[in-house]
Amino acid sequence: MSELAKKTADALRGVSVATLTTCLFKRGLRNQFIQDVHRLNPGAGSMVGPAYTLRFIPAREDLNPIEVYRDPANPQRRAIEECPPGAVLVIDSRGDPRAASGGAILVTRLMKRGAAGIVTDGGFRDSPEIAALAIPAYHRRPAPPTAITLHQPIDIGVPIGCGDAPVFPGDVMVGDAEGVVVIPAHLADEIAAEAVAMTEFEDFVTEQVRAGRSIFGLYPPTDPATLTQFEAWKRER
Amino acid sequence: MSELAKKTADALRGVSVATLTTCLFKRGLRNQFIQDVHRLNPGAGSMVGPAYTLRFIPAREDLNPIEVYRDPANPQRRAIEECPPGAVLVIDSRGDPRAASGGAILVTRLMKRGAAGIVTDGGFRDSPEIAALAIPAYHRRPAPPTAITLHQPIDIGVPIGCGDAPVFPGDVMVGDAEGVVVIPAHLADEIAAEAVAMTEFEDFVTEQVRAGRSIFGLYPPTDPATLTQFEAWKRER
Amino acid sequence: MSELAKKTADALRGVSVATLTTCLFKRGLRNQFIQDVHRLNPGAGSMVGPAYTLRFIPAREDLNPIEVYRDPANPQRRAIEECPPGAVLVIDSRGDPRAASGGAILVTRLMKRGAAGIVTDGGFRDSPEIAALAIPAYHRRPAPPTAITLHQPIDIGVPIGCGDAPVFPGDVMVGDAEGVVVIPAHLADEIAAEAVAMTEFEDFVTEQVRAGRSIFGLYPPTDPATLTQFEAWKRER
Amino acid sequence: MSELAKKTADALRGVSVATLTTCLFKRGLRNQFIQDVHRLNPGAGSMVGPAYTLRFIPAREDLNPIEVYRDPANPQRRAIEECPPGAVLVIDSRGDPRAASGGAILVTRLMKRGAAGIVTDGGFRDSPEIAALAIPAYHRRPAPPTAITLHQPIDIGVPIGCGDAPVFPGDVMVGDAEGVVVIPAHLADEIAAEAVAMTEFEDFVTEQVRAGRSIFGLYPPTDPATLTQFEAWKRER
Amino acid sequence: MSELAKKTADALRGVSVATLTTCLFKRGLRNQFIQDVHRLNPGAGSMVGPAYTLRFIPAREDLNPIEVYRDPANPQRRAIEECPPGAVLVIDSRGDPRAASGGAILVTRLMKRGAAGIVTDGGFRDSPEIAALAIPAYHRRPAPPTAITLHQPIDIGVPIGCGDAPVFPGDVMVGDAEGVVVIPAHLADEIAAEAVAMTEFEDFVTEQVRAGRSIFGLYPPTDPATLTQFEAWKRER
Amino acid sequence: MSELAKKTADALRGVSVATLTTCLFKRGLRNQFIQDVHRLNPGAGSMVGPAYTLRFIPAREDLNPIEVYRDPANPQRRAIEECPPGAVLVIDSRGDPRAASGGAILVTRLMKRGAAGIVTDGGFRDSPEIAALAIPAYHRRPAPPTAITLHQPIDIGVPIGCGDAPVFPGDVMVGDAEGVVVIPAHLADEIAAEAVAMTEFEDFVTEQVRAGRSIFGLYPPTDPATLTQFEAWKRER
Repeated sequence: MSELAKKTADALRGVSVATLTTCLFKRGLRNQFIQDVHRLNPGAGSMVGPAYTLRFIPAREDLNPIEVYRDPANPQRRAIEECPPGAVLVIDSRGDPRAASGGAILVTRLMKRGAAGIVTDGGFRDSPEIAALAIPAYHRRPAPPTAITLHQPIDIGVPIGCGDAPVFPGDVMVGDAEGVVVIPAHLADEIAAEAVAMTEFEDFVTEQVRAGRSIFGLYPPTDPATLTQFEAWKRER
Repeated sequence: MSELAKKTADALRGVSVATLTTCLFKRGLRNQFIQDVHRLNPGAGSMVGPAYTLRFIPAREDLNPIEVYRDPANPQRRAIEECPPGAVLVIDSRGDPRAASGGAILVTRLMKRGAAGIVTDGGFRDSPEIAALAIPAYHRRPAPPTAITLHQPIDIGVPIGCGDAPVFPGDVMVGDAEGVVVIPAHLADEIAAEAVAMTEFEDFVTEQVRAGRSIFGLYPPTDPATLTQFEAWKRER
Repeated sequence: MSELAKKTADALRGVSVATLTTCLFKRGLRNQFIQDVHRLNPGAGSMVGPAYTLRFIPAREDLNPIEVYRDPANPQRRAIEECPPGAVLVIDSRGDPRAASGGAILVTRLMKRGAAGIVTDGGFRDSPEIAALAIPAYHRRPAPPTAITLHQPIDIGVPIGCGDAPVFPGDVMVGDAEGVVVIPAHLADEIAAEAVAMTEFEDFVTEQVRAGRSIFGLYPPTDPATLTQFEAWKRER
Repeated sequence: MSELAKKTADALRGVSVATLTTCLFKRGLRNQFIQDVHRLNPGAGSMVGPAYTLRFIPAREDLNPIEVYRDPANPQRRAIEECPPGAVLVIDSRGDPRAASGGAILVTRLMKRGAAGIVTDGGFRDSPEIAALAIPAYHRRPAPPTAITLHQPIDIGVPIGCGDAPVFPGDVMVGDAEGVVVIPAHLADEIAAEAVAMTEFEDFVTEQVRAGRSIFGLYPPTDPATLTQFEAWKRER
Repeated sequence: MSELAKKTADALRGVSVATLTTCLFKRGLRNQFIQDVHRLNPGAGSMVGPAYTLRFIPAREDLNPIEVYRDPANPQRRAIEECPPGAVLVIDSRGDPRAASGGAILVTRLMKRGAAGIVTDGGFRDSPEIAALAIPAYHRRPAPPTAITLHQPIDIGVPIGCGDAPVFPGDVMVGDAEGVVVIPAHLADEIAAEAVAMTEFEDFVTEQVRAGRSIFGLYPPTDPATLTQFEAWKRER
Repeated sequence: MSELAKKTADALRGVSVATLTTCLFKRGLRNQFIQDVHRLNPGAGSMVGPAYTLRFIPAREDLNPIEVYRDPANPQRRAIEECPPGAVLVIDSRGDPRAASGGAILVTRLMKRGAAGIVTDGGFRDSPEIAALAIPAYHRRPAPPTAITLHQPIDIGVPIGCGDAPVFPGDVMVGDAEGVVVIPAHLADEIAAEAVAMTEFEDFVTEQVRAGRSIFGLYPPTDPATLTQFEAWKRER
């Protein structure tokens, strides 16, 4: 898994997912946002970390009696115990929230092990308990039925789809109160730097708009005076 | 309608819907969770009671002018006045939330009459008012248009589908902050007992995981020591 | 654009969207509720104002590089700067929330310019920031990807569809915590008056139901005594 | 079940479902077309007959082992043996074609018993065999899995929804190569008469349009000469 | 409307929609295929012509009584009488096939007037009759209910979305047995030339594959010998 | 990959997918039917063979320029050249038919190499050409846009989901004119034998029903005489 520089991670924690999707768009990447998942615990801070992936296929009943959970080789259980500290566990649940991708005990364990977050395009069970945990968690909707009702965990560490976005192990996952974006690993440093600059400019713009200024000439800064004012604003801060 | 023992009802109030779906799964019942409805008022406590059912079909315009509400034989109105105290009114709205399954006045009346809750796989109108009531209420999304725009109440007390789950009158409905599960009446006592035991074990597991323990050997308790520790933990409580 | 009388606007601010859909239903209008959008900031008060429309079509990549935002003739940007004070900006996003209909800077500018609200059947980016603004805003779900990922703003001031409802420029948009209804401009005055009367009666009914009264004879008032009691109740208030 | 006059039935056999929906629209009935089902065997002639209804709910596994088919009281089996000759069996499968509403043996039996047709908003198994039968059959898509995988037949002869249309026992079902429409029983005679007249006019219009005439003035006949020509055309036939 | 050169039109008639989407993909255009519509009459030859557009919004009941069809200014009727010979009428029906975008009489008139085809992302009524006409017609599924049940024609000649693709008036529409693609007008000549060359190469490849050759080195022609053989093959033809 | 006995394969060629789903249902397997795909070429005979799997994830634009097809290691290309003779290529396209899972050249090559069939839960391009090939092919709907528009082939020979069914390499795929079922490899022999017996009985039943007999007592054979008659019928054949 590629290394995620601390400087990059810190930068990403200070920018929004919306801003990051724009930086990706400029590079021709239009589908890196994980569609239709939301944060259970928006107050738990932003999420940044490399992707550690888990893949589900539809459950075949004879292979998925309740006893499968006793097997330490079960990929869902292994993922919880093997996801590296600092990483984000990303689950391909085929977008199906009718049965759980996991529950509060597993997510608590993941949190204790130092993971940076968990994302599924399905749903979690025990969602009220997960909403009270300090680890960022994203899903589609609450899904009380036990995972094996519909899902069979099949492998770990492979490229997956999640919410219609491609996720390769090691890609940098960033989540805020709106959602989660997938940054290809090799672009993380430059995207982070660009997003920080863009965020600063948008903070300036927001202040100007709140003061009553029109967006024309300001956003984007087609009036050269805007950039001069922005430079002055930065010096004053 | 089968009797719901007080002991069973009390037990069910202390366990989660997620735990109950697992108990049902062990008995081969995989579709008892009402899919894609959510609680309007999570703070109003858990919901437990036998199902009292109401069925809608698509509205035919000539049979559904605004005047139909004047008819005391209208099944929607009758359901509100006839649902037994302690029961849960469950509505088959064909999963269609584009028009209301009911509104705040009807739900208030149901609450005053002592019903245990109300569930629809459609939507309620006046949802902010319903969210402030003390009676548990579940729906898909707010649905201000009056019911007869799309729905015609057609009968009461028949088996229905609700959120893709089968609901027979008298089945035990249990709802928490995550959703609603349907327990076949004849299984209620044994499922309640099993869920209580399972909940106690999961409370022990949660405490252990919070203290830093791995899930391997613990959850499920494949390490025999786990069960010994659990017994000790129970004695200490 | 037709004038919205102050008296009518004030009346509409005091009634619910649910009540208004019933008044429209009585006139044969069944599809005036904007389906499947919700309020980001329910605390910001009710929304009343004439519709000012913006239409998107699917984005063609060569026409939608990031530079398009520099063009002051871009209909999305123009809509923000030209929407009349007091009006509601209604956006036809073809019900697609996979990319943004707009973001916090644009919505802030709209608010500063005195618009009454903004509605899209797609999604907003920067939704947490928008949720903190004082201007009523409605969407389907958060949509961080920049608009031009999928949407091309194409014209302003034309009749549109929004959430499966027809919206003509100048129609009166009313939004509360449940959603948004579209009142044809020529009906606004009479619908407002009828809704005020209906609201007063429903307040009376709610009080009666809370006091334990059955809905039969009361709601609707098929018992003549109900209307007499209502008249007395009104005099006492 | 109301009687369907032979004259009315004969008239309905000669008109299209499209024409009938227009006649219903003129009477304020907009939702009588069964959405999203198609004919397996378009060559088998038109379908006309009163509705005989069967309702499914979601299957509960313990109530639906393979042995249920041995029970002559099973409503699916009874419907096949009890549907009156000349009637159309209409099945409410909740729009779910993932498991069968029935198969070739049952449909063959229904045909032998003289039924006029069969309609489900789910799917049939053995659809190639059914497509070769002489009885009109309509479904959503092929559904090989046995019915009890997902469906439990629950009652017969009750009002149902089918393809988002309301169907009351005795309503007149008419099907052609495009689909199926539900005519309320009490309107069948007058709708049939109107549709015959409308069909004759549209035959005239089609002939004129094929000869190169503009639709303006012709369709609808806003030019008075059109009606004169139509009268002449009728006399010539 | 831009001119469509005869040479380009002839070239486009000899290539497949699949090949054209690849040519567009190479230029960064990924969404020019009209999703989820199919040809009613595959035998009627390929469709090539500039787009002439018609836009629907959701119908408001008071504006859409049956009498609207008497108005010659009705955009649906005007579109039929004004669509230029050789052009393709493309209808934005918001992807909704629950009511008709048009019927056999209108499509027959369009054919007689020399239009090159008709496309809707909704559905046609009288679809069996349209399937027998010589004019290419594409839709989602049969839709017998009269248009005004759900659709209000609102304008002509504006950019629209159809099947999630952007369509500008004058864009070149090409349809074959698989579906319809939208070629931006300014690219038509170069895309046509490229597609002809690509088609010739794929004919060669198909012949080779039928003769038992592996696709490696052949498709794409990474083995230089392949191109030499292709040149020889072309000379022989 | 497990061996598929010739006797089993021959038996499976003579039974229907519907019958096989019933045999699987009796063993508790309810989700082995591939939902919502259909045969392009029903006349090409039944399809029987072990599954050889290919998995797609959503395409990332920078990894999927048109040049990727030049890489012989591309899993889509490798699958075509490496799928064993007699096997069925099954593709997990995440149920997304908006871009192709493959086209006529690839499917022709697969046919020439002796594969038994191809199945995707997405769509094929060049579908009219594929419909004319002798190799059974199943998809959701025509999908002209080149695969890399949305799909990135990622691995071969792993367990996948296809049409909501679990598919393990080596599972026995059986397809007829209705669709495709997945038989777990270890059950193939016994399921084949049971299905043959069941088919023979249903042939007898069909003959009886065609002769006018009631299904009661006959299907299932609750009347003991039925089985005696069946034995006699078998002897006569």
